[in-house]
Amino acid sequence: MTSKIRIGIVGHGNLGRGVELALARTSDLELAAIFTRRDPATLTPATAGVPVHSMDELVNFRDQLDVLILCGGSKNDLPKQGPALAALFNVVDSFDTHNRIPDYFAAVDAAAQAADRTTIISIGWDPGLFSLNRLLGEAILPDGETYTFWGKGLSQGHSDAVRRVPGVRAGVQYTLPAEEAIARVRSGERPQLTTREKHTRECYVVLEEGADAAAVEQAIVTMPDYFADYDTTVHFISEETLHREHSAMPHGGFVIRSGETGAGTRQVMEFSIKLDSNPEFTASVLVAYARAAYRLHREGRHGAHTLFDVPPGLLSPKSPEQLRKELL
Amino acid sequence: MTSKIRIGIVGHGNLGRGVELALARTSDLELAAIFTRRDPATLTPATAGVPVHSMDELVNFRDQLDVLILCGGSKNDLPKQGPALAALFNVVDSFDTHNRIPDYFAAVDAAAQAADRTTIISIGWDPGLFSLNRLLGEAILPDGETYTFWGKGLSQGHSDAVRRVPGVRAGVQYTLPAEEAIARVRSGERPQLTTREKHTRECYVVLEEGADAAAVEQAIVTMPDYFADYDTTVHFISEETLHREHSAMPHGGFVIRSGETGAGTRQVMEFSIKLDSNPEFTASVLVAYARAAYRLHREGRHGAHTLFDVPPGLLSPKSPEQLRKELL
Repeated sequence: MTSKIRIGIVGHGNLGRGVELALARTSDLELAAIFTRRDPATLTPATAGVPVHSMDELVNFRDQLDVLILCGGSKNDLPKQGPALAALFNVVDSFDTHNRIPDYFAAVDAAAQAADRTTIISIGWDPGLFSLNRLLGEAILPDGETYTFWGKGLSQGHSDAVRRVPGVRAGVQYTLPAEEAIARVRSGERPQLTTREKHTRECYVVLEEGADAAAVEQAIVTMPDYFADYDTTVHFISEETLHREHSAMPHGGFVIRSGETGAGTRQVMEFSIKLDSNPEFTASVLVAYARAAYRLHREGRHGAHTLFDVPPGLLSPKSPEQLRKELL
Repeated sequence: MTSKIRIGIVGHGNLGRGVELALARTSDLELAAIFTRRDPATLTPATAGVPVHSMDELVNFRDQLDVLILCGGSKNDLPKQGPALAALFNVVDSFDTHNRIPDYFAAVDAAAQAADRTTIISIGWDPGLFSLNRLLGEAILPDGETYTFWGKGLSQGHSDAVRRVPGVRAGVQYTLPAEEAIARVRSGERPQLTTREKHTRECYVVLEEGADAAAVEQAIVTMPDYFADYDTTVHFISEETLHREHSAMPHGGFVIRSGETGAGTRQVMEFSIKLDSNPEFTASVLVAYARAAYRLHREGRHGAHTLFDVPPGLLSPKSPEQLRKELL
């Protein structure tokens, strides 16, 4: 019997808890330890018996972990953690600040190359599986257009913006893809779509006592960058309803490539996801790529990678022979 | 300026003509020659000025072609051509006899390894992009079910079966995915579906003069293996209508992975295509993988591969830096 791939989780928020759930559904990976900046005694992992350590101890585990899965945020955690830990461990992360990816890749690559370690960055669904499908669409149908739609899903950034409006006690924001726009794209007509035509926004807001609902609504729908360019609907609800109906973190989306091969010959490729839990799905993608990172490292492929560099077969616990026989 | 990747097309049926169209839409690949078993003088390529040669001359082009794209059939052509040509050239093919893939892979691999050549087999959409999505679904959501639906599309094998029925002068058969079954799968409920529940079949038939329509219909819908297990509809049409409305080769299909991460947390991934022309799309996938075969060979990665072994970035004409910046 071969031993399991030993995984360390760094950070135990929604994503870290999702990684625990995903690891429990594999038979070739095991959760070896969780690392946190909080007091380890305050954490309650889902995994029976798993040790929880302070982040400061991480360096002592260099020889006891095959791959680290970083579950911190892209704004404050990963820019420091990513390069620092790539010099010590094989690592996968979900760095998702699109316009900083080239710099982040370079920093992680330098650290990992110097230490003969392997990192895969920006894993999840966007960046991640959506990126993969954008690449496939463009490579296979070069004469075409790619359309990405997000939702229906809870948007963290837009929910934060709603909650900053004076008079708002609590609230969430959902991004919805416009069904009509999707239907036009699917038909193969390759429309030019404005921001307003692609997505709508829906807010569920709990007011402070005595707040002016009309003023709050006006402040939200006219907010520049966040809402002004969209058709936005504001619903006022009770705090109880908010907790009961809006505590989940669903998300989803579509990547559609519409192209032509012969004259007038329309070809459409589409990838979509519909998620009850955004962080649990992202965690599941991270876990599959942790398996790949381990294998890349064993093959001597060091430095930083993205999912564009990873042969898909490395994601599966099955052997190449089994994959060809069962899935091809 | 770097020189273009020189491609040879072997076989000039629907698929070979599709490869011509796909190559014309790339800027880094060029069609160097077409090889045929027919009299080369009888071929009319779409590509201006491209030389057409007899298959017998192929061996003389060993140093003039970077990759061959095999456009013959899986039943009679590829089992011989694949291993023979893998010993002389870098090759991509669309070998699609699912249950013979392991043997075919072994034969091609042995030939290519011995000659330091690179082959990618079974490229297209099923096997091909559908296989890739079955792998991704299973690796990311191990607690789940994968569903493949085909259509709406023209099925060559079933059309042939219809045309063999006494009294049938001409005809085509379309496979249709059952909308209700797809809706159930998309909802995340993971149903057990019978053959009859997943697809229906629709036949458009031109009768021989004096043939008994009722007898023909009965012979079709009760035909074992092909139609008896499906709900089949037979439409009788004129030869003129058949040519006018049923000469295209549309196809399509869906690969849906429905799984759970946390308890009761449903996650659904879906890949689908809707094709005006099945052979032109398959050809477009082949051309992208021809680019990858060239690059794998340049990296010294010899032998047989499937799309499970190919890093997706190799499919794109863009550099890794560009891909990270623009598509990730």
